[in-house]
Amino acid sequence: MLSIRAMFSTDAMRALWTDAALYAAMLRFEAALAQAQARCGLIPPAAAESIAQACARPEVFDWTAISADARKAGTAAIPFAKALKQEVARRAPEHAAFVHYGSTSQDVCETALMLQAQAALRLIHGQMRDLGDALAHLVQTHRRTAMLARTLMQPAAPISFGWKAAGWLDALDRCAGALQDAGEACRVIQFGGANGTRAALGVHGQALADAVAGALGLRGTPIAWQSARDRLARLGNELALCCAMLGKLGRDISLLMQSEVAEAFEPSGAGRGGSSAMPHKRNPMACMHMLDAALRAPPLALSLVSDMTAEHERGLGSWPNALPLLADLFMLLDNALSMAVETAQGLRVDPEAMQANLVRQHGVVHSETVGMLLARALGPAAAQRIVDALCRQALEQGAELRDLLLHHPEVDGRIPAADIEQACGVERCLDAAEAPCVPVLAAWAARRAGLHVAAGMADDSPS
Amino acid sequence: MLSIRAMFSTDAMRALWTDAALYAAMLRFEAALAQAQARCGLIPPAAAESIAQACARPEVFDWTAISADARKAGTAAIPFAKALKQEVARRAPEHAAFVHYGSTSQDVCETALMLQAQAALRLIHGQMRDLGDALAHLVQTHRRTAMLARTLMQPAAPISFGWKAAGWLDALDRCAGALQDAGEACRVIQFGGANGTRAALGVHGQALADAVAGALGLRGTPIAWQSARDRLARLGNELALCCAMLGKLGRDISLLMQSEVAEAFEPSGAGRGGSSAMPHKRNPMACMHMLDAALRAPPLALSLVSDMTAEHERGLGSWPNALPLLADLFMLLDNALSMAVETAQGLRVDPEAMQANLVRQHGVVHSETVGMLLARALGPAAAQRIVDALCRQALEQGAELRDLLLHHPEVDGRIPAADIEQACGVERCLDAAEAPCVPVLAAWAARRAGLHVAAGMADDSPS
Amino acid sequence: MLSIRAMFSTDAMRALWTDAALYAAMLRFEAALAQAQARCGLIPPAAAESIAQACARPEVFDWTAISADARKAGTAAIPFAKALKQEVARRAPEHAAFVHYGSTSQDVCETALMLQAQAALRLIHGQMRDLGDALAHLVQTHRRTAMLARTLMQPAAPISFGWKAAGWLDALDRCAGALQDAGEACRVIQFGGANGTRAALGVHGQALADAVAGALGLRGTPIAWQSARDRLARLGNELALCCAMLGKLGRDISLLMQSEVAEAFEPSGAGRGGSSAMPHKRNPMACMHMLDAALRAPPLALSLVSDMTAEHERGLGSWPNALPLLADLFMLLDNALSMAVETAQGLRVDPEAMQANLVRQHGVVHSETVGMLLARALGPAAAQRIVDALCRQALEQGAELRDLLLHHPEVDGRIPAADIEQACGVERCLDAAEAPCVPVLAAWAARRAGLHVAAGMADDSPS
Amino acid sequence: MLSIRAMFSTDAMRALWTDAALYAAMLRFEAALAQAQARCGLIPPAAAESIAQACARPEVFDWTAISADARKAGTAAIPFAKALKQEVARRAPEHAAFVHYGSTSQDVCETALMLQAQAALRLIHGQMRDLGDALAHLVQTHRRTAMLARTLMQPAAPISFGWKAAGWLDALDRCAGALQDAGEACRVIQFGGANGTRAALGVHGQALADAVAGALGLRGTPIAWQSARDRLARLGNELALCCAMLGKLGRDISLLMQSEVAEAFEPSGAGRGGSSAMPHKRNPMACMHMLDAALRAPPLALSLVSDMTAEHERGLGSWPNALPLLADLFMLLDNALSMAVETAQGLRVDPEAMQANLVRQHGVVHSETVGMLLARALGPAAAQRIVDALCRQALEQGAELRDLLLHHPEVDGRIPAADIEQACGVERCLDAAEAPCVPVLAAWAARRAGLHVAAGMADDSPS
Repeated sequence: MLSIRAMFSTDAMRALWTDAALYAAMLRFEAALAQAQARCGLIPPAAAESIAQACARPEVFDWTAISADARKAGTAAIPFAKALKQEVARRAPEHAAFVHYGSTSQDVCETALMLQAQAALRLIHGQMRDLGDALAHLVQTHRRTAMLARTLMQPAAPISFGWKAAGWLDALDRCAGALQDAGEACRVIQFGGANGTRAALGVHGQALADAVAGALGLRGTPIAWQSARDRLARLGNELALCCAMLGKLGRDISLLMQSEVAEAFEPSGAGRGGSSAMPHKRNPMACMHMLDAALRAPPLALSLVSDMTAEHERGLGSWPNALPLLADLFMLLDNALSMAVETAQGLRVDPEAMQANLVRQHGVVHSETVGMLLARALGPAAAQRIVDALCRQALEQGAELRDLLLHHPEVDGRIPAADIEQACGVERCLDAAEAPCVPVLAAWAARRAGLHVAAGMADDSPS
Repeated sequence: MLSIRAMFSTDAMRALWTDAALYAAMLRFEAALAQAQARCGLIPPAAAESIAQACARPEVFDWTAISADARKAGTAAIPFAKALKQEVARRAPEHAAFVHYGSTSQDVCETALMLQAQAALRLIHGQMRDLGDALAHLVQTHRRTAMLARTLMQPAAPISFGWKAAGWLDALDRCAGALQDAGEACRVIQFGGANGTRAALGVHGQALADAVAGALGLRGTPIAWQSARDRLARLGNELALCCAMLGKLGRDISLLMQSEVAEAFEPSGAGRGGSSAMPHKRNPMACMHMLDAALRAPPLALSLVSDMTAEHERGLGSWPNALPLLADLFMLLDNALSMAVETAQGLRVDPEAMQANLVRQHGVVHSETVGMLLARALGPAAAQRIVDALCRQALEQGAELRDLLLHHPEVDGRIPAADIEQACGVERCLDAAEAPCVPVLAAWAARRAGLHVAAGMADDSPS
Repeated sequence: MLSIRAMFSTDAMRALWTDAALYAAMLRFEAALAQAQARCGLIPPAAAESIAQACARPEVFDWTAISADARKAGTAAIPFAKALKQEVARRAPEHAAFVHYGSTSQDVCETALMLQAQAALRLIHGQMRDLGDALAHLVQTHRRTAMLARTLMQPAAPISFGWKAAGWLDALDRCAGALQDAGEACRVIQFGGANGTRAALGVHGQALADAVAGALGLRGTPIAWQSARDRLARLGNELALCCAMLGKLGRDISLLMQSEVAEAFEPSGAGRGGSSAMPHKRNPMACMHMLDAALRAPPLALSLVSDMTAEHERGLGSWPNALPLLADLFMLLDNALSMAVETAQGLRVDPEAMQANLVRQHGVVHSETVGMLLARALGPAAAQRIVDALCRQALEQGAELRDLLLHHPEVDGRIPAADIEQACGVERCLDAAEAPCVPVLAAWAARRAGLHVAAGMADDSPS
Repeated sequence: MLSIRAMFSTDAMRALWTDAALYAAMLRFEAALAQAQARCGLIPPAAAESIAQACARPEVFDWTAISADARKAGTAAIPFAKALKQEVARRAPEHAAFVHYGSTSQDVCETALMLQAQAALRLIHGQMRDLGDALAHLVQTHRRTAMLARTLMQPAAPISFGWKAAGWLDALDRCAGALQDAGEACRVIQFGGANGTRAALGVHGQALADAVAGALGLRGTPIAWQSARDRLARLGNELALCCAMLGKLGRDISLLMQSEVAEAFEPSGAGRGGSSAMPHKRNPMACMHMLDAALRAPPLALSLVSDMTAEHERGLGSWPNALPLLADLFMLLDNALSMAVETAQGLRVDPEAMQANLVRQHGVVHSETVGMLLARALGPAAAQRIVDALCRQALEQGAELRDLLLHHPEVDGRIPAADIEQACGVERCLDAAEAPCVPVLAAWAARRAGLHVAAGMADDSPS
């Protein structure tokens, strides 16, 4: 094992993608299947009982040995089913034949994958709720904290830091909603038997599928989906989009945290962001994790999309890879999310530094509004000529654009000083920035309620 | 120009992504903006009138020259706005300053992109409706046309061709729905002004955004999204998923069309699928186009996802690339869809060939059901031993598994012949395959109604 | 841990990417660094001795605990260096300060990564040599085994199976060479200290880099490369290309192995390719693994390419991910290679089935040559008319194109029968197919010698 | 047509990927083929003459109409060959049958693609030479211009700007070399006829391939490569790596160009980097283009890799897409390169701003060297304690670390002041930074000679 890999995941999420958790989910499927089959008379009730008892004791199985046989078999389901049959046979030899009855490898593996995905989504929803709350708090607190906007990496007219945070929150809101939808579409059982039609189960196929699904907290589907894999691809894509959305957070904060900008800082603390060479350094490790996920998740999701051209009723190419791909996507996202939560909750914002960087622009970032004001009074040609000249002069001489305007011969006396003061003032910008925060916060209130419910289910969940 | 590129698109879709169409959409934005600004007193009504008149005459502009200046400017919006100002100035010099007033490059470019995306989606929805109808017809027609399933590229228990088509239809249904959702989320205006807060427009910002959006058939958003680009990425991802879904159709049909399988054929005709070397050939060109889109669309969508880590209030890296990326995605999808429609509508299915390939398996594809039948009567160990031996014998000697079973000393007299006949019979399989077709067709009926509405809007649309 | 992941790798390759192996490589770096520093007088010889002794006892470290601290630190190097210092301090407190002296996290981590990459490449080269040998044997054996070509999935003029295998071998040859080159470019140390210039080491920087590199079997570089990551990206790309090249092998063989084609089969055996539902099945599991790697490796390599836009002297985004990305690429490739070796060595080729599939075409696959023959004698218009008609007739009536030609009124007497026999005969095709096998085999002989040397180093390697 | 697309390419590169250029290359192939066939007696010399004459008059063909037929045919080669036959027939009906004789669609299309790729590479090599020269000049000029290093986006010990430029140059050197190799591997003809064996040409196959290749300035290959597409994928990958390498340049310069950093600036000028909203802005448009290519090229290359799993002797999925994929890759790279050349040639470097940003660190960026100095004298524990405290103090109080050290009670008198001065001085850092510039410049001198030759061939080339 390569334990360094764990640095790109959280303990909680990694626990869902272990032998213990995954094989437990496979056992839950087999037990639920046997019990449903007993109820509709397909197998003896005593067999279902034996199977359920064997499935209730995961500790007797040697999962590592089972996994070791997966490579040649092409799927873990074959050694898994063999081992389960042996365990049932140890108890009641006559019941072993009813293990995994009428089912196929992909049924047990992908239903287990869907179960683990639901558990993983509960963790994610909870973290998203926490992140949104922390961002909403930043929006509230800093709705009139003035700072420079930066467009194309250059200074632009002022915004508030609260408005900037509202932009992050707005994207989180949308991504959380889309992920919930994609996750809900995956709350399904895969149950098709050998060829997808459950033909071996005769008339009982659909009823069995629904019963097993119900027992596992999943839904049946109109038709088996073993080679129609868009649900998995869509879930992968939305996980990747969430990572990319967090990558923007990491990008922005790492830019703000540059020594020369110094406007906001992710929290530091013991063991965080030190340098093995330079004692003075405080590195933006949380941002690194967010950017890492943004970079690595989308290509992983791409593999799930490529799997969609699966041949005929079960493709080569290959269905078993959905497990490691989704597991990695969930781990990258949960890692990035937990870093984002810590960052948003502990962000150190420096309004004075923001103000200082703004002041250092000498008002040229108001050039658009000033230009519009002058154009109305003096015509557009004169306006552009004057603004260009005065902006250059302001930056070269360190003079304030406002003062240069007030004393400019073509402006003085033709445009009220108060209008110039307003055009060059930050209040006007803060008013404009504050307005959109209101609907964004309102939308978040609705979304967080939904996430709370979705995440809260984690507490009661059997897995 | 490289006209060969056109081979990967349809004429109808390409027409939406031309200078004529795109600049027309940009002019619509500028006209709507000026008119809304006049209504709330921001600019003189006469200026709005001059601007609207200039915008109504796209033919006077030299779009190629404007585009040629886009590279250095970093966006076409700058030479575009300059040309529009010149045109307005030619009519009324005093009104030129009100062109593009309080707006920024990204506002006009991305709103135009969203307008074209809506028009493109209408074409796509119409094609999807046609494809679904053709697939539904195949489901109906062939719901009891027996054929081999193939899992992992090897023969499995029989299905019907109708059931196979129902799997395609089920995936189309889901992908069409998800694309509609992603498209609806993109039915929005981008309007943020210089830094995203519309500060230059003072108190009028949000009202103006809503008014312009309304005039264009779009919606406003709570907050400008110029650097929160998940809506575009999600649309790109869903377009890519639709391509991948069609890729599976192309994959399956090209496999069925192999000379040795020969069960179904895409339509041929003048100029289609010939070989420049071999006169006898009929190549699966429609499948090629479907597979091509499945291969090329997902990486294009990935670029839109990578754009999500845009820096601050407008990223480098770059927002202008959303236009060629989405244009290419729409063209690849429409091309693949039109090939899929032709294929599904004109598919030549050969039930006799399907039957012949099935018969050639000598019944061994029923091994699962036979095994279950024997297990109940003889125990699992004996069942497995007998089935393994007889399957091998059937394939080696060309004997029917059913006959071997009926005459097997351990089976004869212990399992009713009728049960063996049924286990080795295709009727049981067809029953199982027919059942899921019903809910799939029902779901499609609902979906196609929605697509019909969405596509029908095309007729009334101003673009 | 999720042991099912192991199904996508080999034991041998996995062993190179364990805590034991990776931290051992990091210890080798630290020991070599201290010893070189002692030699040039930067640190006391006794300190180097203490450090080397601590590094020689990997078993005393708790790697899992060290890895657990990597997440917050952003790299395993920080807890690693701390633990090594503690271990040295336990022996000689005064020497602890000389651990990791003048070095930085990325130096130790990426040099260790390069060491493991070299070891991994030795395994890969050995497998490639074996694969090429097996393919060369197939070329030799089947250089006149006639079979259909299939272009665009449709039958084309005959080839030999040996020629087909020569195409696989030719691609392997090229990919193996390119991978060797990319691997050789990575046989370098990373050693830049805090900022890349090794400034803390004064005048000794370059000499130290060369000395440490030499001790580890690596080379120094003109300038540190911590944020110029094209070497890693190129290695990743070549690993991915090798996977894609094997994917084609898997694709072709899985197509040949279809029941209706049945021309070649990957070897079966205990525990291989069974079905958990259908006893009769023999699934192409080796092909599945080859196709899986082809699908998953290229997107992983893409992440390494994306890392190339690292900011300034060490990027966020992030350098530590090169370890899991390269590890996964090596594992996917070694897994696919080992499956390919087994497949090529044990391939069951059925020349009679090939012949039967060819015969079933009734000679129409010779249409190109026949057309050229007729064109010379009768003019192109007549030639095309006759060939089209007779090909159709041959396929519809099951008649031989040769016979139809011999008795065609426009042909009979105007074209020598011997010419028609030759044009419709397979010998002509086999001659053409045999010729290119010679240079391909010759090129392989040269390549395999190089691979043998490259792989043979594995035996003597200290890692 | 959508002329805005042109903003992501240069005029020179776009000219290579037009109908005029591409079909001209196809005509060159057909002419060379006919002439070679005449020389070995396969076709009448007069026919070759007619064909060559028709091929010499590209202006008589309607390329747009030919392309319009490509979609249904699946390749432009079919309508192209038909049109060429008609044109030859117009001159000499009896020669039309010898057009495209023994050749197939992929032969003419992909040989033409390889010809255009060679021409495109010549442009690229020339630009790379210019870029390297400009970077080498920056290395020379600024080899002792001190500036902060930034690791993980935080200040680190000083480097020189020349050393930073040497890092860019080192990467360019390697990427240019790898691209040359990949391009050289593509200097090949594709010539396989219907199935790849050139069987229709009898014994003449290989000789013809070599003759046609020679006439076109290409090489023959041991075996046709129509379904072994790693050469194309490798070329695509190297083009993408070059884009990513330039993306780092764009990333670094856009970071240096931030208002708060202001250390280096891409050149501005008429029509460059203005804002449609804010008159004062100077946007880093060249950086935007470099980052855009870095983001979009790698996924395009991925599609070429995915094409490598082509089925059998000619894959669906599809070979014709290599043309638009490679064309787009070349255009993105040439665009980014030309922006990089302008940027490197016109870069405005501000050594005073670099110095000011360095000074503002108060010497804490020397913490590593200081720590090593103190550790030797006072032991590691005391050293770490003192450095940590003084770095904090320096940053909080704006005091110089050097001064704090000189007056620290534990340091004063125990470490020579000169040693402290040196450890806190930039000269030591500049020495370390200057050394690696020498071998990097030397390597470049060798590389640029090779690029000059490769690019200079452009002047004499017939295309």
